[in-house]
Amino acid sequence: MQAPTGGLIGAIEAGGTKFICALAQVDGTIVARARIDTRTPAECFPDLAAFFHQASAAHGPIAAFGVASFGPIDIDPSSPDYGTFTTTPKPGWQGARFHDVLGPFGAPIVVDTDVNGAAIGEWLAGAGQGARTLAYTTIGTGVGTGVLRDGRSLMGFSHYEMGHIHPAHDRTLDPFNGACPYHGDCLEGLVAGPAVIKRWGTSLDKLADDPAKIDLIGGYIADLAANLVLMHMPDRLIFGGGVVKAPGLIEAVRRRTEARLNGYVSHRLLDPGLISYIVTPGLGDDAGITGAIELGRQALIG
Amino acid sequence: MQAPTGGLIGAIEAGGTKFICALAQVDGTIVARARIDTRTPAECFPDLAAFFHQASAAHGPIAAFGVASFGPIDIDPSSPDYGTFTTTPKPGWQGARFHDVLGPFGAPIVVDTDVNGAAIGEWLAGAGQGARTLAYTTIGTGVGTGVLRDGRSLMGFSHYEMGHIHPAHDRTLDPFNGACPYHGDCLEGLVAGPAVIKRWGTSLDKLADDPAKIDLIGGYIADLAANLVLMHMPDRLIFGGGVVKAPGLIEAVRRRTEARLNGYVSHRLLDPGLISYIVTPGLGDDAGITGAIELGRQALIG
Repeated sequence: MQAPTGGLIGAIEAGGTKFICALAQVDGTIVARARIDTRTPAECFPDLAAFFHQASAAHGPIAAFGVASFGPIDIDPSSPDYGTFTTTPKPGWQGARFHDVLGPFGAPIVVDTDVNGAAIGEWLAGAGQGARTLAYTTIGTGVGTGVLRDGRSLMGFSHYEMGHIHPAHDRTLDPFNGACPYHGDCLEGLVAGPAVIKRWGTSLDKLADDPAKIDLIGGYIADLAANLVLMHMPDRLIFGGGVVKAPGLIEAVRRRTEARLNGYVSHRLLDPGLISYIVTPGLGDDAGITGAIELGRQALIG
Repeated sequence: MQAPTGGLIGAIEAGGTKFICALAQVDGTIVARARIDTRTPAECFPDLAAFFHQASAAHGPIAAFGVASFGPIDIDPSSPDYGTFTTTPKPGWQGARFHDVLGPFGAPIVVDTDVNGAAIGEWLAGAGQGARTLAYTTIGTGVGTGVLRDGRSLMGFSHYEMGHIHPAHDRTLDPFNGACPYHGDCLEGLVAGPAVIKRWGTSLDKLADDPAKIDLIGGYIADLAANLVLMHMPDRLIFGGGVVKAPGLIEAVRRRTEARLNGYVSHRLLDPGLISYIVTPGLGDDAGITGAIELGRQALIG
């Protein structure tokens, strides 16, 4: 794909509460940035268009767009519905399409999930640097994982939905039934922020003085980590999101993952204690927009 | 990669009890074929070399080799140990390398796992035709899964080891501790042929008149199927191997997978009852050698 190499990249990190918009140079330098509250598309999209029109007028033409968005959303570039929200319960968003608002700029548009975007950001400039296969998981309001190979996100007929795998949940040890409306005790139903609050009435970071609770949650997350190893063999696993900030949690995930695998997978990447294998993000809140800019850059280089 | 388009493809399906060797035309037509018992490399490799020398003398020069092998084996083409068996307990095989026996023929060599080879065979000419993302699982002496994207196998730092994921195993309903020496009740430890025999003293096909046993095993396999959906989103899941031949098992896997996902993943590919989504192999015993020939063809076309 040919494109003006001197053009700018329009980037959007679309989240459930806010959109971060940026105009950046191809090297990633941000020249304009804005925050727009997430409302319905009819309310947000005009604000998005206005930002990019104004920023482009000030800084130059936009050569490509990169979008890292909440979902579920069609991220298959070969699909006629590419960039369209699918079966989301979020009012107004089902059937909305980023191309509706960005198409008039006449630049190529790359759309991926929020978690794939964060993975790409971390791969480019954060804790995922140097990893050929990288898994990035966020554990917050929900649970999601993106997997990259050589900096490109993997998918099947749709993006992954790893938050809904079922960890081993022994009700004789843990009678909590889970909080997922679809599955009860799937991973998201056991470890996401709302599940922790439903179970204990407070967030996990307030429970750091209760090692048994930290270990319980860490053990469920470790089932995802072990499954990621066995089913994707990533070079590194990054775990981010609000729940992971609870003191002691990442250590519990490492310990329980190592116990789960029990030496079966032997490779120099899985260091003793998994200290350098299971890590937290390096970019903090900038991972998503960094990844969105990189998605735009990938649209330029094809 | 340039290669003589009129050349022949040497193919090996390397299994724990036998090697199937074939010389084939680029269109897949087999012109010579042999079976060699699996022994140590010092015993097998001369037989392999002799077969290909004789077949090539009769039919023409070999332009590429494709190998679909038991493992664990290094299948990363960029690795210096590509094609080398790693930590196998199989006597004599650790450190053995297909390039040692095939290298002297001077043709490019592509090495992949047995299950990736079978997946490629099914994708090309069997039950996986038309699937962009395809998962092929064998459940026999062991459990293994290969995943393809556009006919090429996926991997991370190594090939996948999905047989060792942990399905949800409620010991109050099923007190069997499993048979895996590493993990006890991982999937392989619950559903592979030796685990079934350890538990019930006979193979699963002899237990077809006991729906509860079929459903129990089907439920564990369904955990892998659901994880495959959530973690790879394949267009289709193929389940083969001796255990899957037990009457009623594939139906149990479909039923339990649908219950596990509980409508969360909505897509036309997941038809009601998963009849066309979860299927058995189309090529039977020919999947592996068909895939090995295709691996050789991929070496030719680069």
